[in-house]
Amino acid sequence: MTTDQSPAPLRRRGERMRQAVLAATVDLLTSEGLTGTTVAAVARAAGVHETSVYRRWKTRENLLLDALGSHADEALPEPDTGDVRQDLTQLMSAVADYLASPQGAALLHLGASPDAGSVEAARLPYWDARLERGEDIVRRGVERGELAPDTDARLVAETLAGPLFARVLLTGASLDRGLARRIVDLTLDGARPRDGRAATG
Amino acid sequence: MTTDQSPAPLRRRGERMRQAVLAATVDLLTSEGLTGTTVAAVARAAGVHETSVYRRWKTRENLLLDALGSHADEALPEPDTGDVRQDLTQLMSAVADYLASPQGAALLHLGASPDAGSVEAARLPYWDARLERGEDIVRRGVERGELAPDTDARLVAETLAGPLFARVLLTGASLDRGLARRIVDLTLDGARPRDGRAATG
Repeated sequence: MTTDQSPAPLRRRGERMRQAVLAATVDLLTSEGLTGTTVAAVARAAGVHETSVYRRWKTRENLLLDALGSHADEALPEPDTGDVRQDLTQLMSAVADYLASPQGAALLHLGASPDAGSVEAARLPYWDARLERGEDIVRRGVERGELAPDTDARLVAETLAGPLFARVLLTGASLDRGLARRIVDLTLDGARPRDGRAATG
Repeated sequence: MTTDQSPAPLRRRGERMRQAVLAATVDLLTSEGLTGTTVAAVARAAGVHETSVYRRWKTRENLLLDALGSHADEALPEPDTGDVRQDLTQLMSAVADYLASPQGAALLHLGASPDAGSVEAARLPYWDARLERGEDIVRRGVERGELAPDTDARLVAETLAGPLFARVLLTGASLDRGLARRIVDLTLDGARPRDGRAATG
């Protein structure tokens, strides 16, 4: 029970307050970059008290991960065309496009920052949840008999996303238009010679 | 032409000086971490002048990349058994072991740091060179007919290494013993059902 002297900002409670703060965070990340996105600046832009932000998110890193995660989830499709190759290509193309955006690059770099100590504990569940969309597609492909029954859905999702992450974080190589499709084809068909190499669904 | 008042350290010129500085850098990274590895500390440990370090490497980031890169190159094998699956598994297992070491994690995090602005230009050629070892193995596999003639060797190398990088940088998932082999199998065989799925060389 705290004495409240400025009730106006505090009225934006619950989900509305959360959405306003997350949107302000993404906006600031895009315009000011990681270092410019302080809790004070976010609170000012969202019209809430800085203490309200800390009460809900505890740390700046948690806030940034929540904001970028929600933003990414909205940017990524959940294709379900009945064709595993098409679904994976759609999803990974959207991931590539997202990672090529300022918000996507900020999200990845934040996750990979060695200084984001307090973010450490949040990483595994965070990326677990993000990889699940790809795993679901793979599992449906296994159920339809498009993929081998012993397919490791998590490993496939990691193998599809890994090269995209590595390009953004390490090599700086571009995420060109056809890349997602080429990675999907390699992961589904393999590099060994085979008959019927073309997509058959 | 500078006047030199302490000739002793400067006598360690050329390659000997370089090796001493690189070894001191890796030692410090392992014991003190990234932030503790300053140019001053490296120079002191290697018995050279700080100015000599800056003259050769220009920036701290260049020094760190050179040190960790040389260290990684020594840690990684260049298998050539005549079997592409075995060669790739050996290489990627060594990469996984290396990335699980303090030096390997430091190398990756340094490469991915959003603050390492001056390192930016060095990234692409640096990782290009590191991926080449995998590409060479793939190309030999294509020449021997083990892999399809249209195999994109660079893409295969990226797809093998990407999931390992992502685990260290993003998810924090462990690099368990069999992981490298499972990724190699997926990338060579694909996830689609196929006859003769087992390794045939």
